[in-house]
Amino acid sequence: MSQALEQLRDHLATIRDLNHTAGLLAWDQRTQMPRGGASTRAEQLATISRISHELFTGEKTLSLLDAVDVADLSPDSDDARLISHTRYNYERSSKLPAEFVAKQSRVRALAGKVWEDARANADFSQFQPHLETIVEMVREQTQFLGYDEHPYDALLNSYERGLTTKQALGLFDELKAGTVPLVLKIAAMGDDGRDAPLHGNYPEALQEQFGKKVTVRYGYDWNRGRQDRSTHPFCSNFGRNDVRITTRFNPNWLSPALFGTLHETGHALYEQNIKPELDRTPLGRGTSLGVHESQSRMWENIVGRSRPFWEFFYSDLQATFPEPLANVDLERFYRAVNAVKPSLIRVEADELTYNLHILLRMELEIALVEGTLKVADLPEAWNAKMQAYLGITPANDAEGVLQDIHWSGMMFGYFPTYTIGNVLSVQLFDTAIAQHPEIWDEMRRGEFGTLLGWMREHIHQHGSKFLPNELITRATGRSMDAAPYVKYLQTKFAELY
Amino acid sequence: MSQALEQLRDHLATIRDLNHTAGLLAWDQRTQMPRGGASTRAEQLATISRISHELFTGEKTLSLLDAVDVADLSPDSDDARLISHTRYNYERSSKLPAEFVAKQSRVRALAGKVWEDARANADFSQFQPHLETIVEMVREQTQFLGYDEHPYDALLNSYERGLTTKQALGLFDELKAGTVPLVLKIAAMGDDGRDAPLHGNYPEALQEQFGKKVTVRYGYDWNRGRQDRSTHPFCSNFGRNDVRITTRFNPNWLSPALFGTLHETGHALYEQNIKPELDRTPLGRGTSLGVHESQSRMWENIVGRSRPFWEFFYSDLQATFPEPLANVDLERFYRAVNAVKPSLIRVEADELTYNLHILLRMELEIALVEGTLKVADLPEAWNAKMQAYLGITPANDAEGVLQDIHWSGMMFGYFPTYTIGNVLSVQLFDTAIAQHPEIWDEMRRGEFGTLLGWMREHIHQHGSKFLPNELITRATGRSMDAAPYVKYLQTKFAELY
Repeated sequence: MSQALEQLRDHLATIRDLNHTAGLLAWDQRTQMPRGGASTRAEQLATISRISHELFTGEKTLSLLDAVDVADLSPDSDDARLISHTRYNYERSSKLPAEFVAKQSRVRALAGKVWEDARANADFSQFQPHLETIVEMVREQTQFLGYDEHPYDALLNSYERGLTTKQALGLFDELKAGTVPLVLKIAAMGDDGRDAPLHGNYPEALQEQFGKKVTVRYGYDWNRGRQDRSTHPFCSNFGRNDVRITTRFNPNWLSPALFGTLHETGHALYEQNIKPELDRTPLGRGTSLGVHESQSRMWENIVGRSRPFWEFFYSDLQATFPEPLANVDLERFYRAVNAVKPSLIRVEADELTYNLHILLRMELEIALVEGTLKVADLPEAWNAKMQAYLGITPANDAEGVLQDIHWSGMMFGYFPTYTIGNVLSVQLFDTAIAQHPEIWDEMRRGEFGTLLGWMREHIHQHGSKFLPNELITRATGRSMDAAPYVKYLQTKFAELY
Repeated sequence: MSQALEQLRDHLATIRDLNHTAGLLAWDQRTQMPRGGASTRAEQLATISRISHELFTGEKTLSLLDAVDVADLSPDSDDARLISHTRYNYERSSKLPAEFVAKQSRVRALAGKVWEDARANADFSQFQPHLETIVEMVREQTQFLGYDEHPYDALLNSYERGLTTKQALGLFDELKAGTVPLVLKIAAMGDDGRDAPLHGNYPEALQEQFGKKVTVRYGYDWNRGRQDRSTHPFCSNFGRNDVRITTRFNPNWLSPALFGTLHETGHALYEQNIKPELDRTPLGRGTSLGVHESQSRMWENIVGRSRPFWEFFYSDLQATFPEPLANVDLERFYRAVNAVKPSLIRVEADELTYNLHILLRMELEIALVEGTLKVADLPEAWNAKMQAYLGITPANDAEGVLQDIHWSGMMFGYFPTYTIGNVLSVQLFDTAIAQHPEIWDEMRRGEFGTLLGWMREHIHQHGSKFLPNELITRATGRSMDAAPYVKYLQTKFAELY
């Protein structure tokens, strides 16, 4: 390795250590920290983030990048990719003026608190002036960052590098055409109560124990991970050897902790299986939010809500929770975990209606960024779309426009990655199945090694070495494609309803 | 506040945030981290420590210190003390050459691993060459740091600023004269098994519950703290609003977790009660190890092993653990927790013999630093002193010279602070009692507010604003004085034996 390259790697490793340290501060804040520690913790996080940002955007990064002779490197080598990845991020982060970034932090911090209150009071008017500032700044941000076709592209690219608004809209058009009629048909049938078995006496400790059994079989390495409680479940990592998940338990409802655990385990499997050489480099993490979500949604839904999965696990689950499940047979349970029920809250949505929640938000974001929708008109626009896509209307703004944290955090362009993840999950899974049809039979035996191995080889190990679309094309032979996902949903839910 | 002062405070606050962050990395490492995370965690700790050290020893610190017009400040003001404290530490840390500091880290890391193995094998010869290097470097360190009278002064000052070897030896002479005869007399009486009630069926969860009750009454603020498990108990803090203790439970032995919890709570009360204005400054922590230990030993021993304490708590303890305590009356229990039993392992020693373990180590350290004792002769010297002071001899080096981690970590001069803590605990407690004789009665009612209030006012709130001896003199009207402690031990144990 050239000396310049070695120095660059050291410099980036320092920054990576700082970022992982900030990650630990945040993980601790959400899982362990005593309440009184909040304000000092905020200072600590600000300090670590500032130092990391200063180190990365400082002259040293650029001069080290310039000093490496890229011509010496094969274009597909880890080192060449490390350099192009770093240069891209360096240039992108230098596009935002320091004062703008500082103002972002202040506005976000304040808006976050106001949003919490506004949601508690179901009162959008409290939040409105803050959201107006945010939308104005987001529009400014798109100008700083630049774009070819549409200002929203600049935002999407913060989370899904290379994705365009046009692509995203095209994808959602397919989804809308393929699923809205089915959703409205099911909604018209009314609630048949098929998810009832999931509600009942589900002691927390037993839920935890059962969830752990599944994650062990999935291949989550508990020697390099752990599970804690948090209000909002998440997966956090401080290098590939320390990847932690969190869960929220409801002792009277099986779904949140069980499927939440499978979901976060999907994220964790990605991070744990990045190849060791990328650890402590900027490539040592999942390549995009969408690709990350493809892993979590696959292990949660395609695997975790499938018949073969439950053919293996159901007898154990039934023995663990005899009271609520004694008279529920496998087929009825399978139908329960796949119940479709148009509902108001995104994070509780079923597999079929989930994307419509996302579509709604993306369309509203685009309109706000384009300036064709005013913040003041947002609640009404929200409710109208809710009615059009899901056939229901929120009783108040807490159940509606105020439900998500993202806008108060200025995270425009983030929501679509959830659906991208769903789309990619099926595209990847179908490819793995085509190459290894035995995967279904393995699942029936509680074995997941072939599936995990395929994901490890084609997705996980590469970390951020390849851009999202490049990675997907290498893995599946084609660009992101909504067709398999639409087909998956139609097949699965036509059989169920 | 002048602009220079403000900049200095900002600069030092950044460093403090980094140090607290390193503290969290270490806390997590010892309480939460999955095993696989060890090597990446070591890198993260090294990075944060290096950045903090670079920031503190860099030119900016000196130029900001020089820019403040100290003449403007009252000598006893927080700001004046902040500056003299910082200047002292700056000058001290610049005395050690960077190569020496780097070599220290490497030697320590290696020696730590070798020591673990050597202790497991009870084989001093494995550790000997490493300890030889360490002693050589410690002697070099005393030259870099400088001293007036004795090279060991330079080492003591790392932990107890202002303390001299002469003072420490004088103090131990008093202790030796006052307690060795008593210890040998008790040893000659043989073991009467009076600590038997502490061994039995003590379920962990109930121990935890009872310990928590006591800490709440002591005044530990659980809103700004928490308790976790760790192999070696410790107290750690990330600012005054996040002060955490750890404990190790033995389900068949009450003492370790109970008195360990009271001990760590003593440390925690100190940090939680430092005045808020000192938070995020270098003064926002206890002023020395000895003063810190005075707080932990006071709440553990003077309070926690006193009759009034148990007059309040014993019926609850008995109700909590009916099986081992049903037939044990208060007086017998009080005698059990104060059993004296010369033993080989320092950390398990009783209140009376504890200091002899320290005396032994200090005398050996001084001889090694003076060069009058060779590392090769250390095990023999250890065993001889063990026989002279405690009347017993280790069966092997694991029980003897290899038992403590400190020497592998190059921490010479550290041990005496344990005994300084004991001495100061009585000096402070006696002063508080003289001013508030009602403290004993309050204890009998499970109330500790007057005692805590006195400590808060005279010790805690000041953080590191005053040097140890200055603080003690302000609080008690005189310098550190062993006499009250010797009297306390003699009175207490003459009555018990």
